[in-house]
This record gives sequence, C-alpha cells and structure tokens, in this order.
Amino acid sequence: MKIGIIGGGSTGLLLSSYLCEHHNVTLYVRRQEQKEALNEYGLFLSNMETPFVIHTRLIEEIEEEDCFIICVKQHQIRDVLPHLHTINRQVPFLFLQNGMGHLEKIEELNNDIYVGVIEHGALRESDFCVNHTGKGKIKIATYRGHDEILPILIEKLNQPNFPVVISIDWEKLLANKLMVNAVINPITTLFHVPNKEVLTNPYLHHLAEQLCYEAATVLHLEYKTEFEKVKKIARQTGENKSSMLTDIENLRQTEIDSISGYIIENSHSAVPYTSFVYNGIKAIEYKHRIGKAYD
Amino acid sequence: MKIGIIGGGSTGLLLSSYLCEHHNVTLYVRRQEQKEALNEYGLFLSNMETPFVIHTRLIEEIEEEDCFIICVKQHQIRDVLPHLHTINRQVPFLFLQNGMGHLEKIEELNNDIYVGVIEHGALRESDFCVNHTGKGKIKIATYRGHDEILPILIEKLNQPNFPVVISIDWEKLLANKLMVNAVINPITTLFHVPNKEVLTNPYLHHLAEQLCYEAATVLHLEYKTEFEKVKKIARQTGENKSSMLTDIENLRQTEIDSISGYIIENSHSAVPYTSFVYNGIKAIEYKHRIGKAYD
Repeated sequence: MKIGIIGGGSTGLLLSSYLCEHHNVTLYVRRQEQKEALNEYGLFLSNMETPFVIHTRLIEEIEEEDCFIICVKQHQIRDVLPHLHTINRQVPFLFLQNGMGHLEKIEELNNDIYVGVIEHGALRESDFCVNHTGKGKIKIATYRGHDEILPILIEKLNQPNFPVVISIDWEKLLANKLMVNAVINPITTLFHVPNKEVLTNPYLHHLAEQLCYEAATVLHLEYKTEFEKVKKIARQTGENKSSMLTDIENLRQTEIDSISGYIIENSHSAVPYTSFVYNGIKAIEYKHRIGKAYD
Repeated sequence: MKIGIIGGGSTGLLLSSYLCEHHNVTLYVRRQEQKEALNEYGLFLSNMETPFVIHTRLIEEIEEEDCFIICVKQHQIRDVLPHLHTINRQVPFLFLQNGMGHLEKIEELNNDIYVGVIEHGALRESDFCVNHTGKGKIKIATYRGHDEILPILIEKLNQPNFPVVISIDWEKLLANKLMVNAVINPITTLFHVPNKEVLTNPYLHHLAEQLCYEAATVLHLEYKTEFEKVKKIARQTGENKSSMLTDIENLRQTEIDSISGYIIENSHSAVPYTSFVYNGIKAIEYKHRIGKAYD
C-alpha cells in the first residue's frame, strides 16, 4: 500500500520506520532541512545500525497515496488542511492527534476519516532518528466514513511487532486518552518528575485526583474508573518523561491547548485545578518564549 | 535596654545586627554550632568588614531580659513556648512571624504580647552572616496588653536606618502581610521566578489574581485593594527571590502551612487555587525530603 505519513515528529518517524518494511511509505515534512537529512542519512530507529530508506517530501509536494496518516500535533492541523483538500476524496485519512479539538477543524474534509490514539513511547533524537522508548498499540476507530474499510485498513497496517487494533467508539477512545493526558502531562511538567511520581508523591496524587475529577465530569466519563486507568498508565510508564515535559525541556510548544484547554472550553462549571495547570504551563511557555503564549 | 532575640535565622540575625549598637542584645539560637560560630567570628551584616559582637546563648540557657523579640518561623513556635513560660510575666514579648496561625498557640502565655511584620529583605548567608537585601520597615501592633507600652517600646527600637513604626490594628496588619505572602510566595516558588514575574508574566498574573481573591475572601479583606498592594510589593521587590523560593532552594522547610495552610483551614467555601499551591509546595518538599511533608 502507498502510505503518506504527514509530520516528521516522533510519531511520524516511528510509524514510517515500522510501516516502510511492508509498504511504500512517503514521509511528508515541513522543513527542507529535515527532508534533506532524511534523504542523505535515511531513517534510524532506536539503536539499529542500518537506517530505513524512505521517500521524503515537503508537504507542499503532496501526491496521491492509498491512504494518509496525519501525525502532526493538533496545533499544526490548520497548516496541513489546505494540502489535504487537494487529495482525491476516495483516499482515507487517519488522524493520530492528542485531544479532541481537531475534530471540529477536520469536519470540512470530504474524505472518510478515521481517528486513533498511539500508546507508544517515542522520542525524536534528531530529524532522522527516533527512539522507541515504550512499546504499545495503535487503536483506530471510524470517525466518519465506511465502517467496512476500517478492518481492511487495520489488516494492512497491523504487524506482530507494531500492533494496530480496532476500536468501536471513537469518542470514548479519544476521551480516554485525553483524560490520561489531562492528568499526567501537566503534573509531571509543572513538577519536573517522571510519570510514576503521580502515584508515589501523595501531594501530586491528590492533585491528579482533582484534575481527573474535573476532566471526567467534562468528558462524561466515570471518574473512579478513569482514575484507575490514569494510575495504571502512570505505573506502566513509570520512569518515562511525559511528552509535555519533554516538549518543555526541548523548548517546544506543548499541547496544553489541545488537552487542558479543551477541557476548559467544554466545561459547563468551574474547573479550577485544570485552569491552574493550563495557566501554569502557559506561564512556563511564556517564560521560555515558546509558542502562542508569547506570540 | 536588654533585648533577647530568639531565633538565628535571617530575621533574628538582621535584628541583632541593627539593634546591638544601641542595646544589650542576646541572640538565642537552637544549635550549639551556630552559638559557637557567632562567639568565634561575631555577626557580619551584608558587606561590612567588621563584625558586631553580640551575646549568644542556646534557647535552653534563657535569662531575664527587658524584652524578647521572637523571630523563629511559625512552625518552630511550639519549641520556644516552654522557655518563654519561664520568663517573668512583666516582660513584653514581640512576635514577628508570618501568617496568623501562631496566635492561637501563644494565647497561653501570661505576658503582654505585641505582634509585628517585617518588610525587610534578608538572606542568611551562613550561621554568622546576614545579607540585608531590601530595606523596609518593621510594623508593630498590640495584640494583648497595655497599649501605652507600645509607643515606649517603639521609641527604643526605632532607628533612622532601621525604622520601627506603630500599627493600630494587629489583625489588619497580619492579614495584609499574610495576603501578600499567600500570593507571591507560592507562585514564585512553583515557577522558580523572581517576584516581578507575578506582574510581567500574564499567566502568573492571572493565577496571582485568583489566589488573591480566595485569600481576601477568607481574611475578610477587599480583594481589589489587596491585589493592588500585592502588585506594588511585587514591583518594589522585583528582582528578589521570595523567602519561600529561597527556602526550597536551600532544601529548608517552607512556611506553606502558616500561609496557604492557614487560608485553607479558615475557609468556609472551596479555595481550589490556594489548595493547588498548598499541595504543589508540599509535593516539592516531599520530593526533596524536607520537613513534615516527608516525616
């Protein structure tokens, strides 16, 4: 299958490296510099000595593919949309963003839309090197389109060493992931701690519980079940740094708008703990002169 | 006047150095090590080359004085009380703590009690050296006792280069200081910033406003007036590090219990922003294995 992967961040690089063995993968990136680096050196996965050879193009050079997987961060979706509009409407789009704010934006597309969450840990070491720090699954659901296509798509993407599985309810799938992100990401970032401290530090545990309660209320989820899931993930990813903490450490804009910002926007009553972490992360971005907080 | 100053922290050292020129000052400390250092080297103030010579004793060696000024932190008051009980009840006590939680504890004393707030910036560089980082005033009010004694006490303590002034309403005096501490201290500590960033970082400014609103409600103060005061102090002390941030950087227990803890304990409705910073500072103390958060 000809797969177009859009976005040269950690997710885009990880998917490219796993999918390129069985598919004809083209990675679409934003910067000429990254395109050249990937063409010159190839794509390195973790500690492998031999790089994968993939096609790399700038997003402006988009071509027809059998399927597109969009891996950019949510705040970059707007920049990608004009290019997706040029694609034949028979081509399915798979969106792998955190949060749920992008759904509104992609509504305008004419193609079938699938959404998914990625449970892998991945760290971009450079423009052409990605470190697979935690193995997990990719879960996909139909957002808008033909349900019968999803199993076919999954069969093609799924690999024993890189599982891709079906999920029935897109809303629950995205809400569950958002829930976890709304708790673990801001706390680990504000306090510069690995994920497990959400469990082991009783004061962070308390704050996590408050954040979980607010997010569950807004997302219409059952708070106690959700908090058990949050704790399970904090345990499983114990020593890992959250993606938000990694973003801040690398002076990159975080996804706080798509995560806590979404909770605040969709709340019908006060969510003060969420509002605190939202402003707290924005304050750090401002202090470091990153992203919209400073623009 | 024979003055006993209790507590060898930054406030105790600062007061000792300014008052010892005109009074017979004895500084009471907790640790033998500090007593020996002060006896051996004298007391150095900021960049002065010649140290002051003061008497230093352990708190267990307490003697009669004409007046005692208690400069220990609020969470150390309990340890000092038994020694104060041995003092003649004619001797006035002046308490210079942050917060208001100590008032309940000192109620049991039989002596006249005066309370005050210190607006100086002072940094303890070592057991026998204090840096006077910001000049201000000491304001004193009668808490329980003879109002006619206060002007006499103030006349003796006041110096042109170290002003001590009268305040009419002890409750307002302490509440105003607590208000400022409840906003500036936790924010500057959680975000590792100097005081002025409470003004210049719009997201911290927003959080400060929320904290101010909660504290003003609990302390029965007018929120807008108080927030103007908070901003004025953040401006005046711009480049300074708050005492709480200094405590954390030196791995010392903070005064969060006396400050935000007091607001929470005395609130009749939810104070989520205050509760967030309370748990946040406790989480940092726990992470660094400091104080009660860890015991």
